[in-house]
Amino acid sequence: MTSAELESVTGCSSHTIRRDISYLGGDFSSGAGYGVAALRKAIETALGLDRRRKCCIVGLGRLGSALLNFSGFAEEGFDLVAGFDASVNRVEILSSTVPLYPNYKLSEVIGRLGIEIALLCVPAAVAQTATEKLINARIKGIVNFAPTALVVPAGISVQDVYVVDELRALAAKLSSAESLQ
Amino acid sequence: MTSAELESVTGCSSHTIRRDISYLGGDFSSGAGYGVAALRKAIETALGLDRRRKCCIVGLGRLGSALLNFSGFAEEGFDLVAGFDASVNRVEILSSTVPLYPNYKLSEVIGRLGIEIALLCVPAAVAQTATEKLINARIKGIVNFAPTALVVPAGISVQDVYVVDELRALAAKLSSAESLQ
Repeated sequence: MTSAELESVTGCSSHTIRRDISYLGGDFSSGAGYGVAALRKAIETALGLDRRRKCCIVGLGRLGSALLNFSGFAEEGFDLVAGFDASVNRVEILSSTVPLYPNYKLSEVIGRLGIEIALLCVPAAVAQTATEKLINARIKGIVNFAPTALVVPAGISVQDVYVVDELRALAAKLSSAESLQ
Repeated sequence: MTSAELESVTGCSSHTIRRDISYLGGDFSSGAGYGVAALRKAIETALGLDRRRKCCIVGLGRLGSALLNFSGFAEEGFDLVAGFDASVNRVEILSSTVPLYPNYKLSEVIGRLGIEIALLCVPAAVAQTATEKLINARIKGIVNFAPTALVVPAGISVQDVYVVDELRALAAKLSSAESLQ
């Protein structure tokens, strides 16, 4: 497939497409254009979509238990294989298809199952303590829903999800629209 | 304050600072540098932080009621003034400092209180219907927590919050780190 054909399919300019594909670093082009299968594989690898990753939820309050019931992870390559909460009682009461454990089993379960990603849903006040337990358990990445900045060593990836940031982004769009009126 | 002074405070290059300030469009500089008060005001306006905005939560399930209990909105300029749910029973049972209403009052309350932003926390299956009710009620922007794409007319701003997107972004960071090992 040529960059001109990709332009007509995607609406992105062939120049942009050629430049972005060059960032992938491989050699996907012949005189006849790009090999679609090889290109697809390279894009998946670059985007981290080339293999499944195991995830857990830490903190099973309202947000954590809402995520526990979300069924869309598996189809996107993320296997939710464990949930953890400080309260043994809460772990016993919650019903879920995902196995739930008290926090003191966190390190053992993460190691045994090969969990790479934690969705951190604990209150802000205990988020850093929970993060340190996760790092000791050799987690690779954290999606942080706690409204606080986590301190992590180099080599641990964090993705912050903060509702106020989303409100700010929306407010900026509204201000921009208002200034055009 | 000069761009060189701003560089030493922020760590951003004075070139980048001058360019970004030029995007604000005003005239903030004299021979002695930028007027800090005028610059601050222009940045706040550009970022939509120049005035408070009223918000509501639509859908008071686990996620909606978790947001209802988050106390960080007001200090960031967002006043959470109402919550709505389809279930009259749920509205009566939930305890909250924020006034709660059944969905049939949505249009009246949004208009009366001048609510501009809705945090949409309903299930995906009813998200579009709820969106249309919000648009009829003249909402200006929606932070969409439902895992589905909303169809909105021009002039309505949407900010999607989708946990799988965050997992994908994190997985891309992990893949990138792994490829360097």
